[in-house]
Amino acid sequence: MRAMVMAAVALLAGAAEAKTLIVNANGMTLTGEGRVQRFAMMLVGDDGRVLATLPEGASEPKLERGDFRLDAKGRTLWPGLIDAHGHVMSLGFGALQLDLSDTRSLAEAQAKLKAYAAANPALKVIRGRGWNQVSWGLGRFPTAADADAMVADRPVWLERVDGHAGWANSAALRLGGVTAATKAPPGGRIERGVKGVPAGVLVDAAMGLVEKQLPPPGAGEAEAALAAALKIIASVGLTGVHDMGVDAGSWNLYRNFGDEGRLTARITAYAAGLQAVEAIAPLRPTPWLYDERLRLQGIKFYADGALGSRGAWLKAPYSDDPKNRGLQFLTDTRLKNMLSRGNFLGYQDATHAIGDAANAQVLDAYAELKPVYGERFRNRIEHAQVVDVADLRRFAELGVVASVQPTHATSDKAMAGDRVGEGRLAGAYAWASLLRSGARLALGSDFPVEPPNPFFGLHAAVTRQDRDGQPPEGWRKAEALTLVQALHGFTLGAAWAGLAEGKVGSLEAGKWADFILLDRDPMTIPPAELWRVQVLETWVAGRRVFVK
Amino acid sequence: MRAMVMAAVALLAGAAEAKTLIVNANGMTLTGEGRVQRFAMMLVGDDGRVLATLPEGASEPKLERGDFRLDAKGRTLWPGLIDAHGHVMSLGFGALQLDLSDTRSLAEAQAKLKAYAAANPALKVIRGRGWNQVSWGLGRFPTAADADAMVADRPVWLERVDGHAGWANSAALRLGGVTAATKAPPGGRIERGVKGVPAGVLVDAAMGLVEKQLPPPGAGEAEAALAAALKIIASVGLTGVHDMGVDAGSWNLYRNFGDEGRLTARITAYAAGLQAVEAIAPLRPTPWLYDERLRLQGIKFYADGALGSRGAWLKAPYSDDPKNRGLQFLTDTRLKNMLSRGNFLGYQDATHAIGDAANAQVLDAYAELKPVYGERFRNRIEHAQVVDVADLRRFAELGVVASVQPTHATSDKAMAGDRVGEGRLAGAYAWASLLRSGARLALGSDFPVEPPNPFFGLHAAVTRQDRDGQPPEGWRKAEALTLVQALHGFTLGAAWAGLAEGKVGSLEAGKWADFILLDRDPMTIPPAELWRVQVLETWVAGRRVFVK
Repeated sequence: MRAMVMAAVALLAGAAEAKTLIVNANGMTLTGEGRVQRFAMMLVGDDGRVLATLPEGASEPKLERGDFRLDAKGRTLWPGLIDAHGHVMSLGFGALQLDLSDTRSLAEAQAKLKAYAAANPALKVIRGRGWNQVSWGLGRFPTAADADAMVADRPVWLERVDGHAGWANSAALRLGGVTAATKAPPGGRIERGVKGVPAGVLVDAAMGLVEKQLPPPGAGEAEAALAAALKIIASVGLTGVHDMGVDAGSWNLYRNFGDEGRLTARITAYAAGLQAVEAIAPLRPTPWLYDERLRLQGIKFYADGALGSRGAWLKAPYSDDPKNRGLQFLTDTRLKNMLSRGNFLGYQDATHAIGDAANAQVLDAYAELKPVYGERFRNRIEHAQVVDVADLRRFAELGVVASVQPTHATSDKAMAGDRVGEGRLAGAYAWASLLRSGARLALGSDFPVEPPNPFFGLHAAVTRQDRDGQPPEGWRKAEALTLVQALHGFTLGAAWAGLAEGKVGSLEAGKWADFILLDRDPMTIPPAELWRVQVLETWVAGRRVFVK
Repeated sequence: MRAMVMAAVALLAGAAEAKTLIVNANGMTLTGEGRVQRFAMMLVGDDGRVLATLPEGASEPKLERGDFRLDAKGRTLWPGLIDAHGHVMSLGFGALQLDLSDTRSLAEAQAKLKAYAAANPALKVIRGRGWNQVSWGLGRFPTAADADAMVADRPVWLERVDGHAGWANSAALRLGGVTAATKAPPGGRIERGVKGVPAGVLVDAAMGLVEKQLPPPGAGEAEAALAAALKIIASVGLTGVHDMGVDAGSWNLYRNFGDEGRLTARITAYAAGLQAVEAIAPLRPTPWLYDERLRLQGIKFYADGALGSRGAWLKAPYSDDPKNRGLQFLTDTRLKNMLSRGNFLGYQDATHAIGDAANAQVLDAYAELKPVYGERFRNRIEHAQVVDVADLRRFAELGVVASVQPTHATSDKAMAGDRVGEGRLAGAYAWASLLRSGARLALGSDFPVEPPNPFFGLHAAVTRQDRDGQPPEGWRKAEALTLVQALHGFTLGAAWAGLAEGKVGSLEAGKWADFILLDRDPMTIPPAELWRVQVLETWVAGRRVFVK
């Protein structure tokens, strides 16, 4: 009987075919050809796809009973933005942690720690970050006893604001086996009290003593983390994310959310290496799932490390470390074999390369694959941060996507100059040069390394300044993008990098109605204000997933 | 542009709403109330669900352009059968192996081995079974050299027809580290030649020496196995299977098939213990996926072993082993904790219990859970093979499903008598007694332990004979079922056991149009012929998935 009723309901729902008409919008999209197109109305089908956009003055499409009509009240309507390089689960786990960055004293931090532990009784470990004993005016590091006084029943592990030190309570020190007899590993330091007893703070490489022993998050924590990440993602105006380095556990969680209708962003997943592919979909990429909200599409590989830690692999030594050229992660042969296996299985390769030697190595490997896969070849280099000027044109020649993160440039600007020197900066964060050469750019944030807000990225791309307006003239301003170019990178460029140019990235008939409403029109405000744009609403497939 | 065309196609498809009318059928279903209902026509909606069944002489529903009309030509049409206890991947892997059961000489087996190896170059190991040196008239066991002459480049591992011996080539012996110095483990024997050199055959417990070292199947093999299993399942008239003991790898493969539209049977999955649940869906069961073709619904637990190997846990010693009561796998407390955790997460518990002590233990544990979960309580005992007569009524009292396999009885009949003696047989394979007491029965095969053909099960349930007609009077015939009772067990009973009584199990409006066409009418043929019924076509959700 219940089944019969349900069948009847299904028939009714099918018959309704409700459309949604948005009127009175200050609408804007780039078209597939890259032109700016303005519109005042948008008609969305019940399937969540755009039926039409209509200019101001056009007559309103006739609606039927059951259709929806929404007045945008003149607000700016943009296509949803796509972050071409983020880490969804890390964003979520980070969001769940105790945030001590706004504490002004040890006592304040202690109170916050106590309240957080009480509010989260199910957490097996209390994790947090953001403390700074300097801004507290403490004159010393905090101690295990300072934490024990608040939480003694579970390990507490709190990272310093710069991520270079961890503050443990006694339970965490015990878990890590850190005693008076423990020697700090190379590159690390254990703060000590009387008789060498560990005081509670572990610096740099010594942090691993505790970190490696912390239990992995439970299923409930992982679910809460994904829910938190999706909330943040929607709130900053992202409707799609290219998730770099997905393991089997995260993938199954994404599926659980998809199965339950809780995926409020499109996640284009890149497996964490071949091992994750083996566990998730070893034979070929999955199809697009859940109305094109999830796909295991590619594989994330690593060719080198990062610039700050001098792990980026350079053709010549570091300017500030003349004996060091960084880290080559893989031999040429091994890299080629891995990238070849990825493409052979039908996966897209997305390879992390920061230094100019790593970029050259990956481009060389891709050059061998290109003729094999022809039109189907669409691999990516993630970061493409320091590229030999001689190699810049090869992105365009090979059709390799340059997946870059504008906020990295404005965060790294001083450090990058120290590491590689003025000469090599010519090919560093060289977005305008890449575009001029005909390369495809996809923009992202690398969240949670940088904040996920894409308006921060648009701002950095256009101004080449940080959000304090530094440097006033913009850092290597010649490599700045126009706002339209930057928007392209966060929409159609990212869509192309994610093999989804026919599905998302612009508001055109047949594409998904993924869009955002903004508190101001980014096209008319001073570029320095771009990062202040607030997202009022976020819609995915014609359904609202966030409202401010 | 392509996206626009696709959107247009989608609209057209939605508008079509094609129905399928089957006419001139000798149709039969049980109704939800368990009555036999006959019909001549069935109307199926485009969504794959039954719209109506109509009796002979009723006027034909009016069809529209684009609808389908199929003439069943008087053939018998039944609801699709559901196996309440099978092992899908094992069925598939078994089907892929080299089958030597029809070989009449060593030379013939060797030729078949060589051809199979040549036809399957990607297999890392050649696996097979079914050889019998007695029927070959060989007068000795085959040797490693006999196999080496055919395949030397890869391990070869061939099980004897009874599963109690394995024939290895030299590569397999090397892999297992089996040398002249190797001692056979307790309960095992290594056949040896001169100077104790292993000859090639390993018996019983010694088989593990090689088996444990064989590499797990690759992804391509697993995919081929699932495809083979689904083909077999459809060919024997099964439209649904309760898959007992699914690990994370198999689950992901099922999802890959579901994503690609290749799931031709409904798989109700029971995770292989709590570890598999952790990996697949740790917080709660998945929803029904792929138009109700897949769900992680329950957890398979084990309370004891099997009767043949005297692992079944008995209240009193084995009749043929007076010091042995079998194996208790779990303490009462641990079993209760596990079953409680399953229900707490929302999963159904399906617990293997063969011996009367194991059945009593599980019933005791369920009795504690029943009041906690009330109406939502619907746990199962798998096999319920030897039950203390005093415990039989508790299945009905507690609402515990007895998930039994009729072919086990006719295969085990002689052995079961030896193991437990005449007295305890009163509560063994006691299907009619269970039904009389008001218990819910779900029938299955335990494939590949028994063949997956549900008509073998219907035959065994009704006749209590094996397929050679033994014993002529039926084994403990008082416990036989009527054909309608047995059909109920393979349809509505299995559906109820799988929490799907509103979805499948009968051909009634609103349920899925899962049905089969048969070469004869099981209701009118002699019961002894039931196992000979051939399935001509199998349909799932109104789409044909098998035709003979």
